[in-house]
Amino acid sequence: MRIALLNGPNLNLLGTREPALYGRDTLADVEARVRRVGEELGATVTCAQRNGEGELVDLIHSLRGAADGVVLNAGAYSHTSLAIRDALTGVALPFVEVHVTNVYAREPERRHSMLASAAVGIVCGLGVSGYELALRGLVLHLRARAEAARG
Amino acid sequence: MRIALLNGPNLNLLGTREPALYGRDTLADVEARVRRVGEELGATVTCAQRNGEGELVDLIHSLRGAADGVVLNAGAYSHTSLAIRDALTGVALPFVEVHVTNVYAREPERRHSMLASAAVGIVCGLGVSGYELALRGLVLHLRARAEAARG
Amino acid sequence: MRIALLNGPNLNLLGTREPALYGRDTLADVEARVRRVGEELGATVTCAQRNGEGELVDLIHSLRGAADGVVLNAGAYSHTSLAIRDALTGVALPFVEVHVTNVYAREPERRHSMLASAAVGIVCGLGVSGYELALRGLVLHLRARAEAARG
Amino acid sequence: MRIALLNGPNLNLLGTREPALYGRDTLADVEARVRRVGEELGATVTCAQRNGEGELVDLIHSLRGAADGVVLNAGAYSHTSLAIRDALTGVALPFVEVHVTNVYAREPERRHSMLASAAVGIVCGLGVSGYELALRGLVLHLRARAEAARG
Amino acid sequence: MRIALLNGPNLNLLGTREPALYGRDTLADVEARVRRVGEELGATVTCAQRNGEGELVDLIHSLRGAADGVVLNAGAYSHTSLAIRDALTGVALPFVEVHVTNVYAREPERRHSMLASAAVGIVCGLGVSGYELALRGLVLHLRARAEAARG
Amino acid sequence: MRIALLNGPNLNLLGTREPALYGRDTLADVEARVRRVGEELGATVTCAQRNGEGELVDLIHSLRGAADGVVLNAGAYSHTSLAIRDALTGVALPFVEVHVTNVYAREPERRHSMLASAAVGIVCGLGVSGYELALRGLVLHLRARAEAARG
Amino acid sequence: MRIALLNGPNLNLLGTREPALYGRDTLADVEARVRRVGEELGATVTCAQRNGEGELVDLIHSLRGAADGVVLNAGAYSHTSLAIRDALTGVALPFVEVHVTNVYAREPERRHSMLASAAVGIVCGLGVSGYELALRGLVLHLRARAEAARG
Amino acid sequence: MRIALLNGPNLNLLGTREPALYGRDTLADVEARVRRVGEELGATVTCAQRNGEGELVDLIHSLRGAADGVVLNAGAYSHTSLAIRDALTGVALPFVEVHVTNVYAREPERRHSMLASAAVGIVCGLGVSGYELALRGLVLHLRARAEAARG
Amino acid sequence: MRIALLNGPNLNLLGTREPALYGRDTLADVEARVRRVGEELGATVTCAQRNGEGELVDLIHSLRGAADGVVLNAGAYSHTSLAIRDALTGVALPFVEVHVTNVYAREPERRHSMLASAAVGIVCGLGVSGYELALRGLVLHLRARAEAARG
Amino acid sequence: MRIALLNGPNLNLLGTREPALYGRDTLADVEARVRRVGEELGATVTCAQRNGEGELVDLIHSLRGAADGVVLNAGAYSHTSLAIRDALTGVALPFVEVHVTNVYAREPERRHSMLASAAVGIVCGLGVSGYELALRGLVLHLRARAEAARG
Amino acid sequence: MRIALLNGPNLNLLGTREPALYGRDTLADVEARVRRVGEELGATVTCAQRNGEGELVDLIHSLRGAADGVVLNAGAYSHTSLAIRDALTGVALPFVEVHVTNVYAREPERRHSMLASAAVGIVCGLGVSGYELALRGLVLHLRARAEAARG
Amino acid sequence: MRIALLNGPNLNLLGTREPALYGRDTLADVEARVRRVGEELGATVTCAQRNGEGELVDLIHSLRGAADGVVLNAGAYSHTSLAIRDALTGVALPFVEVHVTNVYAREPERRHSMLASAAVGIVCGLGVSGYELALRGLVLHLRARAEAARG
Repeated sequence: MRIALLNGPNLNLLGTREPALYGRDTLADVEARVRRVGEELGATVTCAQRNGEGELVDLIHSLRGAADGVVLNAGAYSHTSLAIRDALTGVALPFVEVHVTNVYAREPERRHSMLASAAVGIVCGLGVSGYELALRGLVLHLRARAEAARG
Repeated sequence: MRIALLNGPNLNLLGTREPALYGRDTLADVEARVRRVGEELGATVTCAQRNGEGELVDLIHSLRGAADGVVLNAGAYSHTSLAIRDALTGVALPFVEVHVTNVYAREPERRHSMLASAAVGIVCGLGVSGYELALRGLVLHLRARAEAARG
Repeated sequence: MRIALLNGPNLNLLGTREPALYGRDTLADVEARVRRVGEELGATVTCAQRNGEGELVDLIHSLRGAADGVVLNAGAYSHTSLAIRDALTGVALPFVEVHVTNVYAREPERRHSMLASAAVGIVCGLGVSGYELALRGLVLHLRARAEAARG
Repeated sequence: MRIALLNGPNLNLLGTREPALYGRDTLADVEARVRRVGEELGATVTCAQRNGEGELVDLIHSLRGAADGVVLNAGAYSHTSLAIRDALTGVALPFVEVHVTNVYAREPERRHSMLASAAVGIVCGLGVSGYELALRGLVLHLRARAEAARG
Repeated sequence: MRIALLNGPNLNLLGTREPALYGRDTLADVEARVRRVGEELGATVTCAQRNGEGELVDLIHSLRGAADGVVLNAGAYSHTSLAIRDALTGVALPFVEVHVTNVYAREPERRHSMLASAAVGIVCGLGVSGYELALRGLVLHLRARAEAARG
Repeated sequence: MRIALLNGPNLNLLGTREPALYGRDTLADVEARVRRVGEELGATVTCAQRNGEGELVDLIHSLRGAADGVVLNAGAYSHTSLAIRDALTGVALPFVEVHVTNVYAREPERRHSMLASAAVGIVCGLGVSGYELALRGLVLHLRARAEAARG
Repeated sequence: MRIALLNGPNLNLLGTREPALYGRDTLADVEARVRRVGEELGATVTCAQRNGEGELVDLIHSLRGAADGVVLNAGAYSHTSLAIRDALTGVALPFVEVHVTNVYAREPERRHSMLASAAVGIVCGLGVSGYELALRGLVLHLRARAEAARG
Repeated sequence: MRIALLNGPNLNLLGTREPALYGRDTLADVEARVRRVGEELGATVTCAQRNGEGELVDLIHSLRGAADGVVLNAGAYSHTSLAIRDALTGVALPFVEVHVTNVYAREPERRHSMLASAAVGIVCGLGVSGYELALRGLVLHLRARAEAARG
Repeated sequence: MRIALLNGPNLNLLGTREPALYGRDTLADVEARVRRVGEELGATVTCAQRNGEGELVDLIHSLRGAADGVVLNAGAYSHTSLAIRDALTGVALPFVEVHVTNVYAREPERRHSMLASAAVGIVCGLGVSGYELALRGLVLHLRARAEAARG
Repeated sequence: MRIALLNGPNLNLLGTREPALYGRDTLADVEARVRRVGEELGATVTCAQRNGEGELVDLIHSLRGAADGVVLNAGAYSHTSLAIRDALTGVALPFVEVHVTNVYAREPERRHSMLASAAVGIVCGLGVSGYELALRGLVLHLRARAEAARG
Repeated sequence: MRIALLNGPNLNLLGTREPALYGRDTLADVEARVRRVGEELGATVTCAQRNGEGELVDLIHSLRGAADGVVLNAGAYSHTSLAIRDALTGVALPFVEVHVTNVYAREPERRHSMLASAAVGIVCGLGVSGYELALRGLVLHLRARAEAARG
Repeated sequence: MRIALLNGPNLNLLGTREPALYGRDTLADVEARVRRVGEELGATVTCAQRNGEGELVDLIHSLRGAADGVVLNAGAYSHTSLAIRDALTGVALPFVEVHVTNVYAREPERRHSMLASAAVGIVCGLGVSGYELALRGLVLHLRARAEAARG
């Protein structure tokens, strides 16, 4: 099973950006841990981070045929980008949306996700652990789907 | 670590209620699995389900001093009950909100949660696996908090 | 054909509550009349009233396998309860919503029904006669459905 | 007792228009049946259908002194026409609003009725049977009113 | 100076329709009086009333070259008809909008006029006298405009 | 009959303020003309202008027992002042609201009047002639009311 | 004079729930004090608290004929329950709404009360003293009403 | 292939109505040109214009079995008429909506179309050429559909 | 303890203004009674009323160092004045907002208070007795605060 | 005449992305066909596609002096990008907006275009043929404009 | 060049009012500094502060012919006063709006300015230095305008 | 003191883009002038412009440790980009937002800034001079902050 872990704008700052909100783990720490959990679950995880909306769209296009699912923290673009949702439905890849912080306890503009209605599911507010939990959830979802398809 | 797994209205129907949406596992199956995952993580999980808003408030009150955190799927009350949020903040128990389905891909009245702003985090759309993931997330959160308090 | 006639909060006051609005028939009068009309139509009508949202959810659950359809006046919960709608769709029972008064000629908060989108139909403003008309409508609907199923 | 059964735009298509939604009975079938039920109830029913808003206004004006009440399915004009409501209150005729389909389970623009606040009551979602039920409800209402007037 | 006095739906009922709101003068009384005031002011007033939106559009088209201005009470269409506004701007005729009642003291749907933004002015709430006042205002407006054009 | 003509903020600028919108007549010109029309109609007109909201409230209080009705152009306060409406209903004086310009063809914040729901009627967009028309309308209204009272 | 002091969900936690917001007096302390003030004013005060919406409805029904007025802090249900308002108007008991905290300085969902429009009055933000003040206000209101009735 | 070109209210004024907005071609010019383009494309085009909403509904009904598709400029009714949309779906005729002007660059009430959600497509802002382009688009759509049906 | 009792626009009319709503006590009666209750509670009450927003701002500024708290009925300005709220927070004086009538049972524009979020508390709907109750509540609040400050 | 055909995010997926919605023609097919139609019409068409908002802005800037008009399908950015509208008005290039699907029959967030108010016109829902139709419309518009300029 | 520096309600409290928000400079300090900067720039600055809306309107009227531009901090009236905007456009004086604090980081009611759409520009959040910056901006604007006028 | 002057999409067009709105100075002119003013104030100003949202995010990240504050005109992204706000708070750099035009006098979509709530302050409508004024304001702010930190 091939999973892509994608991070959007400002998540390269993890560990240094508002640590009271986002914690002290760097993106490299997070990616390493998610890869390790992936191994346990029999999934190869490839990681990427982009600050540009168009670059994220490009990246998602490149995953067609190269990944079975996506764990995605699109950062601020979660709340403003229809192009990223279109990219994901365009290449028909199931994805789980992750937010490190509880977006429902922050500013109103973070309460609406442009991506959520197209996602398999959402994990938010559980810190950087949310990435692993999303990975577990996605792997279970893909297995159940595969099983149903074999059926 | 003592965790309460609370389920709200209509979740006693799990396994029989709209299985295309909610899956075929019964509430008993789910509770057994969450207890087992709790054991792995060193957490005792006690389980309860109620259809009444007031009964859920009573139950939450009874957890003061008896639980360290709550995994909560308040079902429809997630979208309409301020009393349950007040009960949770009233007894000052950290909780993770769970939804079996992706509420953002359903009717508009399910898009707003009365509870989310007071939750540690939310897990939704990942089927009944969401309960286990929420438990994992809550346990990690409680450990980090304990460590910080010692720290 | 087995029909349940369910009444929600404050409808136990029928006959004494704001009679200019709700009329002078008591709930017992209404239930008797609906049962009698049921007999004419070859339907057994069982009646219940509850003031609690959770109790109405419980009652609806208990109808699974025990009723073929529901005539429901959920009173104020019509406008605030998603849990009752979920209970009805959860047990997959067709229902007709009744309001004694014309809710569209009253306060704005009575203009939106949480139940209506899941109902077969709605009868409102026709006084307590609305219950009988709803029963007639429901019986015709169930017969048409049975006929269609037989094919 | 003299009752007018009025139908608005597109209801001349009944039986052929989207039969999955509106059924297979033609308007003539419906009018015949409502007349028959009227006879049972001691009411003479006269029937008319118009596609024009102004023509419906004209028709309603012509009922002054010629009818005691109206069963009205104004079709799409239910949602857009203040002129028809003004015509009905202008000639002071009690009316029951009918919709063949459950308008609350369709597009949002069908959820608001311009007529409902001035109606005696509403019957919706019960298919073409709704016309008969509305007639029954209206007749009961007119009798109760007459009785109250006699005092 | 040639002025058209146009009345929309239900205004043929004037004098009999809700007299507490609309007064006891009939439309014929009103038209006679407005014609008389027109004479005093040196204006020929021609009068018409229609219940249909399309018929009012037709009528307005027929005024091109035949009238210098319009006194218009479009009744309920004031609040719902963009077609009538388009007709008036299409034939480029200045008009004054009249309402017999104070629409701002009635139901919310009467508070917005589709016509007002294209009108010269509005007179409302002054009973049927409003027609004469509107005529006076329109005549003054047309004279001032003519004078300005002469320079 | 005693009528007060009240003008609110910035109407002392009439004749010099944005003449393309408001015309070239000064407030003194307007007041003189309205007084003259009042004489014709058998009404004594007293005139005042204030820029302060509280001063207008004071002025209105002083009219109790001293005036039978008010012609009021409250200028910008029409759109923002509840205190002036309360003053007018507090002293129970019937009033007609005037606007020199067509407020419905200007910025959105001028489309809502705080006063209109309590007014007898409104005259707007007819330039400074609106004052005379309002006076005529008010005098007719007061006469009709007096006549009705005499019964 | 017989007064019922009713408290809704989570008010059994008074004294321990978020004391910075709600103070350190327990519900028992408050009830004792209100009873004492009642004695001074010649009123017998009976007290009850319930966490369930339906139970509060039941309780209110039981007060018909047993109380002359109600001091009510419905807690979170103040903002979500139409059923409780219907219960109060159904048994026609005058009531004063109390909130311990200033709900207008908290989250937006606490700014709207479902009960307020049917209340005699509201006291909020004055801590637990608000209960006594509400009692005083209610007693004065009932006396004035009785006096007016005696006439 | 049989195509109907329908025009709604005020489009009979084309060529004379606000020519800066709508151009100088008359409706007859436009109809002639669309017929000619139809001939090139192998489509017979029949043309009609009505100012009445009900008349447009009648006209659309008459096209059942007589046309394969509709090019429709419903003018102002595009923004207010649900009855016309119902007529089009009622007779199940594919249609392309045309606007001569760019409605998104005009008043807000022109930005919402009641018809668009049921249309095959929309052409707007391209002047009277929009009619030909809509015809081309519709013909291509009908051919593709026919091919798919054969296919 | 020094308390200022401030009244805003139109409250000088108390006793004569809409007595069905506001009662028959004059402002002087009310002020005398509040002063008397103040004496009982050991508080000196000084009273003032102004119709102007700016004058109320001036008055509030003058209370700095001269009063310990304010009982304020800002009348209509409660709903429109941010300047008065800024004055109160600018001089850092705790205040209790009073309304004689139940503003939640009146027009919608009275349902929002510009002041409430900065107030200690609100008393409304309890007639002129509300002033005394507010005074009692304020005195208790100031004493509790003083006690807390002493520690 | 030099025309640029610009496509935005995800349109590189044409032919493979949700073919039921977008059809089976690839972007290369479309571009070839539009170029061919351009030749017929005497217009040179140059084509480009970008997934990034900033890259589209850059591209538009580069067209100044190099193109006479633009056919633009900005994909998801149509609904979210003010920067692209500013780029187009910044270089003062007339453009026609294209959507392959009928955006008014899809999710609500696709119903508003950030670009439409600045466009010459819009073509939507007519599949990939929309591009050719837009080109035809644009060429006619540019010719008419040139002619008007020549005078 | 003659510039007026006007301050609105509560700005007389500068230096003492919520110093954490507004700083410790008094209004006199600010006015002195702005006058000094004016001198540097060749502008005579006259200063005034008023707490009343009407008084500010009076003051602005008095500036006609006596000032070339206005630096205005209308305090709370910025958010509620249309009368002040009307006064400024009435006397046709260019003005720059100043806010000491960043109103976009405070309560929602401070986010909308009634004045901004008529201002030359706005300076906010830069503390009392904002006054000087506004003066500089206004002087540059007036010079550029004068230059343009000279041509 | 190190200040970065950042410009967003389309600002490279300054001097040529809609000069009536934006003036005739090029971006290079503006940058030179701001650098010069910086020198006067003892601040080194580095300048950059980007059309891409992601590129602006990258640029802002690169300023961590390299700048003490930012003068930012994010152009259209001011109104749509949460990612840029997150970048600025992520690197904790104080910034002043600049708009060349008065955004409150333009289209509604320019009235809301995504950045303003996180900014130190805003300068808008003062033409390209706004950049210098913003720089002055930012320098004063940074000095005051440094001074406060020293203590």
